[in-house]
Amino acid sequence: MGSVAFDALESPFGKTDKILGGAATFISLAASHYLKDIRLVSVVGGDFPKEYIELLTKRGVQIEGLQIKQDEKTFFWSGKYHNDMNSRDTLVTELNVLEHFNPIVPESYQGSEYLLLGNLSPIVQRQVIERLSVKPKLIAMDTMNFWMDIMLDELLATIKLVDLLCINDSEARQLTGEYSLKKAVDKILTMGPSIVVIKKGEHGALLFAENQVFAAPALLLEEVFDPTGAGDTFVGGLVGYLAATQNLSFANLQRAVIRGSALASFCVEAFGTERLQSVTNQELQSRVLEFSRISQFMQA
Amino acid sequence: MGSVAFDALESPFGKTDKILGGAATFISLAASHYLKDIRLVSVVGGDFPKEYIELLTKRGVQIEGLQIKQDEKTFFWSGKYHNDMNSRDTLVTELNVLEHFNPIVPESYQGSEYLLLGNLSPIVQRQVIERLSVKPKLIAMDTMNFWMDIMLDELLATIKLVDLLCINDSEARQLTGEYSLKKAVDKILTMGPSIVVIKKGEHGALLFAENQVFAAPALLLEEVFDPTGAGDTFVGGLVGYLAATQNLSFANLQRAVIRGSALASFCVEAFGTERLQSVTNQELQSRVLEFSRISQFMQA
Repeated sequence: MGSVAFDALESPFGKTDKILGGAATFISLAASHYLKDIRLVSVVGGDFPKEYIELLTKRGVQIEGLQIKQDEKTFFWSGKYHNDMNSRDTLVTELNVLEHFNPIVPESYQGSEYLLLGNLSPIVQRQVIERLSVKPKLIAMDTMNFWMDIMLDELLATIKLVDLLCINDSEARQLTGEYSLKKAVDKILTMGPSIVVIKKGEHGALLFAENQVFAAPALLLEEVFDPTGAGDTFVGGLVGYLAATQNLSFANLQRAVIRGSALASFCVEAFGTERLQSVTNQELQSRVLEFSRISQFMQA
Repeated sequence: MGSVAFDALESPFGKTDKILGGAATFISLAASHYLKDIRLVSVVGGDFPKEYIELLTKRGVQIEGLQIKQDEKTFFWSGKYHNDMNSRDTLVTELNVLEHFNPIVPESYQGSEYLLLGNLSPIVQRQVIERLSVKPKLIAMDTMNFWMDIMLDELLATIKLVDLLCINDSEARQLTGEYSLKKAVDKILTMGPSIVVIKKGEHGALLFAENQVFAAPALLLEEVFDPTGAGDTFVGGLVGYLAATQNLSFANLQRAVIRGSALASFCVEAFGTERLQSVTNQELQSRVLEFSRISQFMQA
């Protein structure tokens, strides 16, 4: 579940018109590299092109839960990245169909074992949890500072219901009021989730579960072309891999974090979802091995 | 070679009077955990306490190259750390004896195989290289943005002579004008050094040599008490381990980076050199293993 959107991007490398974007789009495309059975919950307007929907269904994404509001417009976001690619300005945010989004969980989705709540209002995220009649094996959630700023209580109520929370390091600090990341994560582990994944962008990711820590490296890329969707791709690949392997052991969580990282490293190589669509199995496998190569060492 | 100094520190955790500091101090104490034969080149004033000198000699540091200028005062630095411990204000810098420091390399130091140039003027760093009659097996150098700002040409001339350069990520970007860290390091590898180590603080370190990359993780500490000297400790432990093991293979460079990281993680646990002095072999070994534990994983 998450947004399906139009994005328009500017970066030192160029500019795009309205292209396919949205958290649920990146999540679905990322997960599709590991998982066959993906069930989308989202909403678009009558302006959303059929080709984009076909692009998703061709990769095995079920769209019964994708509402199409013929008389409304699709969510639109436009942003501009600066030279360092770490800071961006939002130029336009048009909520459109997202403003009154009431998520529908079709009967055919009932019994889903892995639920990933992409970044969206925590109220909508919670509605999806409540509309599933059987509790999934794993409820994972991505969120961001925006919801901490404007509806912290709602956010905390949703976090209470999830098993895996994925946020970035500054958001973990904001959510807990702890500067020490160790203390911040310890606090989050008392809020509901038993698994916490901290995204650190070019510095990799940290996984916390079962009293263990795993520091996943990031690859050193020549160039980050467009970071849009990298976080969604990361969590989509991570949860997609977990769902495909049906294994929530710490060792498999580690592998899932590496898969998410590998997919995110492709995502930033081109604008929008372009690279996520073109990446082959072989490319993906060889990049996963690169993560081992740069981080594994022999103590003696 | 580097500064031996008085530091006065303020942080959210407390305040110190003038305590023992200086790059060469942290470097020597860190290296002493692996290496027996350490030869210090530095300068202090008549105000420098005998106890501090004994503290060094007791850990096997030779001080024939430590000039004591009786009528002058020791270099003094005072700084204040903010809540996030990543930003600091310099309150006082009194160069004192460092202002006209002319490094002496005693006859007994000739034939040294590993030279570590701690952060100091690149002119003084180069003088030490020139005053060694036999080229060491490895010349390592630490530096900082300050020298890039005020004497870039001198800095580049010294970098040309060194084998291993250790700087932080923002300094690598400043030195090369490349935002991409990959491109920045590729450029540095054409400037003289064949080994580059990028310090990333709480995000670990990156090692580049022989066309290979190693991403070393950082431990997640409950609290960073005082970051002063962490970078010096890191490079001191790294080069000390290389000198002790007499092995410059990539696999041993990886181990050396982990040793430097482990020592730096102790350094920040207390003010000044306190923790570097008290850490036992057993504590150090068990922390080195922690670095494996948080970063090593099985692909299948």
